[in-house]
Amino acid sequence: MDETIATVGEFELIRRFFAPLGGAVAAGMPVLTGIGDDAAVLAVPRTQHLLTTVDTLVEGVHFASTCDPFRVGCKALRVNLSDLAAMGATPHWYLLSLALPSATPVAWVEAFARGLQTTAEAFALTLIGGDTVGTPGGIVITVTVLGLVGQGRAILRSGAQVGDVLFVSGTVGDAALGLAWSRGQLAGVAPEDASFLRDRLDLPEPRLALGKMLQDAALAHAAIDLSDGLIADLGHLGVASGIEARIDLERVPLSDAARRVIDGREGEMLPGLLAGGEDYELAFAAPAGARPAIMEIARRLALPITEIGTCAASKPGVVVSRGGAPMVIDRGGWSHF
Amino acid sequence: MDETIATVGEFELIRRFFAPLGGAVAAGMPVLTGIGDDAAVLAVPRTQHLLTTVDTLVEGVHFASTCDPFRVGCKALRVNLSDLAAMGATPHWYLLSLALPSATPVAWVEAFARGLQTTAEAFALTLIGGDTVGTPGGIVITVTVLGLVGQGRAILRSGAQVGDVLFVSGTVGDAALGLAWSRGQLAGVAPEDASFLRDRLDLPEPRLALGKMLQDAALAHAAIDLSDGLIADLGHLGVASGIEARIDLERVPLSDAARRVIDGREGEMLPGLLAGGEDYELAFAAPAGARPAIMEIARRLALPITEIGTCAASKPGVVVSRGGAPMVIDRGGWSHF
Repeated sequence: MDETIATVGEFELIRRFFAPLGGAVAAGMPVLTGIGDDAAVLAVPRTQHLLTTVDTLVEGVHFASTCDPFRVGCKALRVNLSDLAAMGATPHWYLLSLALPSATPVAWVEAFARGLQTTAEAFALTLIGGDTVGTPGGIVITVTVLGLVGQGRAILRSGAQVGDVLFVSGTVGDAALGLAWSRGQLAGVAPEDASFLRDRLDLPEPRLALGKMLQDAALAHAAIDLSDGLIADLGHLGVASGIEARIDLERVPLSDAARRVIDGREGEMLPGLLAGGEDYELAFAAPAGARPAIMEIARRLALPITEIGTCAASKPGVVVSRGGAPMVIDRGGWSHF
Repeated sequence: MDETIATVGEFELIRRFFAPLGGAVAAGMPVLTGIGDDAAVLAVPRTQHLLTTVDTLVEGVHFASTCDPFRVGCKALRVNLSDLAAMGATPHWYLLSLALPSATPVAWVEAFARGLQTTAEAFALTLIGGDTVGTPGGIVITVTVLGLVGQGRAILRSGAQVGDVLFVSGTVGDAALGLAWSRGQLAGVAPEDASFLRDRLDLPEPRLALGKMLQDAALAHAAIDLSDGLIADLGHLGVASGIEARIDLERVPLSDAARRVIDGREGEMLPGLLAGGEDYELAFAAPAGARPAIMEIARRLALPITEIGTCAASKPGVVVSRGGAPMVIDRGGWSHF
């Protein structure tokens, strides 16, 4: 029988799997006092502002019980990093809170911690604190990430201006298709496409390099990461900025896999992709004059960046049009309840 | 029938109950960008270090389903504040992550948010971000608190020195008795004692003023808050400092209510009180010469501070003695699994 965390105990679990994540990461920002005290102590360089954000993943909601725990560990960090990417900031530290049923196999925790560590090393992050508790329910993972950006340099949701162009990185809707496929709601998907779409759902790529380059060059007036879905998130940006985000449906970039899956069903399925969450791409508003610099960033990062619309002086929010005609899209993003 | 969060929706819930908590609190530290963006942006004054800590409360583990949600909101913040108190720091900001079953009554969320806000106002805290998600399990609440302390001034667990005296604030074991009573494991408790002990469990008082005064006057070499229990927590402090924390059982301060409850059963029940968690008092090590200054603080705060032992050069950890004879105490604190 698999060893469970109940036989190992809380303190041993921390010692074995999480304390090692508190070790200093090469090239990471220093930690004055890390895990093992009542609170972590950090020095924020005087030229920098501190950024922080929190995200929770729930078993059975954000990941299935059958998900590879290594991937769950990766995703738990990546979704937070995406928030800092949208601000143009660089993440440095994180806190982890983990509610675990007592029957959780130790092997689950080990693989989860490896996923965290792999991601933490890739982005030079250090674990600085946490809490590990039991729960009668399923696994609940909460990650708080902290990072830095030059004073006054954070890219907010609220800075878009009338006349700005709207851009989006990567492709939109892959995660929604990956989720539909993993729930058995999509038939006839080629194995390589299914694998690609699942990876887009499970292993989102936080666009930190893009966010930082936009911030360094002061190219973007406003940005947001796509967690709730393109329509809902551009709606948030539009409301925060007091502009109407006008998206041209036909310009929204889709992956080859997504195109193959929706082939012949575009009218029925495309709105769902625009409303589907968890792509963790960046959408941002920039002046038209920034186009050449933005395309140069796309080239340097080998990351598609696509112009999908404009910011207009109308009702703050978002509208989608197709061939110039406004569309009504019902599914305005993911609500949890 | 009660209105549930499923009928209200995630965004409306945030707008109605949590967005107001992001309003600037009088006398609080400023927030450059608060809730409503991808991440919060904070300016850390150049003379200060940033502190952060996270704690999770799980329904059915840390609070019963029948608990008053107002009290749950109070406690969720208070347990985090206690961690900053132990470091001598001042809390300023917090993030909230809330996993809620879709059947949660809106009235629960409203009362919970009032509990948070009452506590936040009492301690000049501002909500700067969060995440609200659904869960098929019970309620899970994760609070991350951020605060400040003068550079190099945080009181760590690791600074206790051989010859230091050990002090504890308030009284020990009340929360353990409150928990036992609320589970129906204690008979014959007078109603006013039961009420006192339950309040000690539900509404712990973070000893922020004490922590700050110890830090301001550089009186304590090391400190910890009592979350896992006096023995376990002084064990943590002893190991971190490389000293043996020697506690004299007969000096451990008990409340009048606790004395009445264990009257005639001290031998059987006293060890359980020393191992019981959640008192959220501060235990700290200070040089003997600091006694008069510490007693003056006790007087000014009208808070009992009791000398309960010493720091010895022996095996790092904790020992309890009674009348000079070492005791073996099995229950070395709370493990969650």
